[in-house]
Amino acid sequence: MAEPARPLSVRKQDTLRRLEEDVDLWVATASLDGTPYLMPLSFLWDGSTLLLSTAAGNPTAKNLQTNATTQVTLGHTRDVVHITATTEVLLPEALTQSEGDAFASKTGFDPRALKSPYLYFRLTPIKIQAWREVNELSTRTLMDNTTWLA
Amino acid sequence: MAEPARPLSVRKQDTLRRLEEDVDLWVATASLDGTPYLMPLSFLWDGSTLLLSTAAGNPTAKNLQTNATTQVTLGHTRDVVHITATTEVLLPEALTQSEGDAFASKTGFDPRALKSPYLYFRLTPIKIQAWREVNELSTRTLMDNTTWLA
Repeated sequence: MAEPARPLSVRKQDTLRRLEEDVDLWVATASLDGTPYLMPLSFLWDGSTLLLSTAAGNPTAKNLQTNATTQVTLGHTRDVVHITATTEVLLPEALTQSEGDAFASKTGFDPRALKSPYLYFRLTPIKIQAWREVNELSTRTLMDNTTWLA
Repeated sequence: MAEPARPLSVRKQDTLRRLEEDVDLWVATASLDGTPYLMPLSFLWDGSTLLLSTAAGNPTAKNLQTNATTQVTLGHTRDVVHITATTEVLLPEALTQSEGDAFASKTGFDPRALKSPYLYFRLTPIKIQAWREVNELSTRTLMDNTTWLA
């Protein structure tokens, strides 16, 4: 038996807490020819954007460099935070020291310290949805066109 | 501290158990113009293929009808089963009674009983990888080109 549907305000609080506390998310990208690619990555939330990093040669990095649209999800299949985002590609030098440090502290890995080339990606959410079970699906949209609805 | 890397044989056992016991997975599809779409769905594993179902008008269904390549993941970001698959689209009438019943029993929903049009999708794994932490990444491939390596 599903719990009652959460009001949008509660869902927004839950979503912001997950963005602060969760370490990993699922990242779905696609190549320009339409091949999907799905991979978990760690992330840092700064209050309005998500910062990711992966090796420059990985399919996720290649896809994000040519195709800025991505969908990412936090959490479990019965407690979903679903984000459609646009992506800005950042060289490690483009990060401030404090942001690079915060990323390393949160995720447990520091791409700046690696010899192989890594890129950072700043994801700006366009749309955010959150739902647990079917009874939350019809009201799952928390942010639309970059504007919080709650 | 990560656990020691599991031998491939153990990873295969773990993966087959997850395919039997897990109810949901993440499905990454893409439209032909390269827009990724990520959604959780329930599934039934029959020993060699995964059966999914979603409303015919949903983006996942539309993408799979035009672009048969998909990537799906089971489990959590630190216990990943990662499957690249090809997709066969099935009308509800194409399922045997017993397979439709098994799907409804496993997933808790029966698309055959719904008035709105649903499609089934049979995913045949081409490649299966399984890993928990970084120490399992280099040996993560369990199936390649439809052949189990373990």
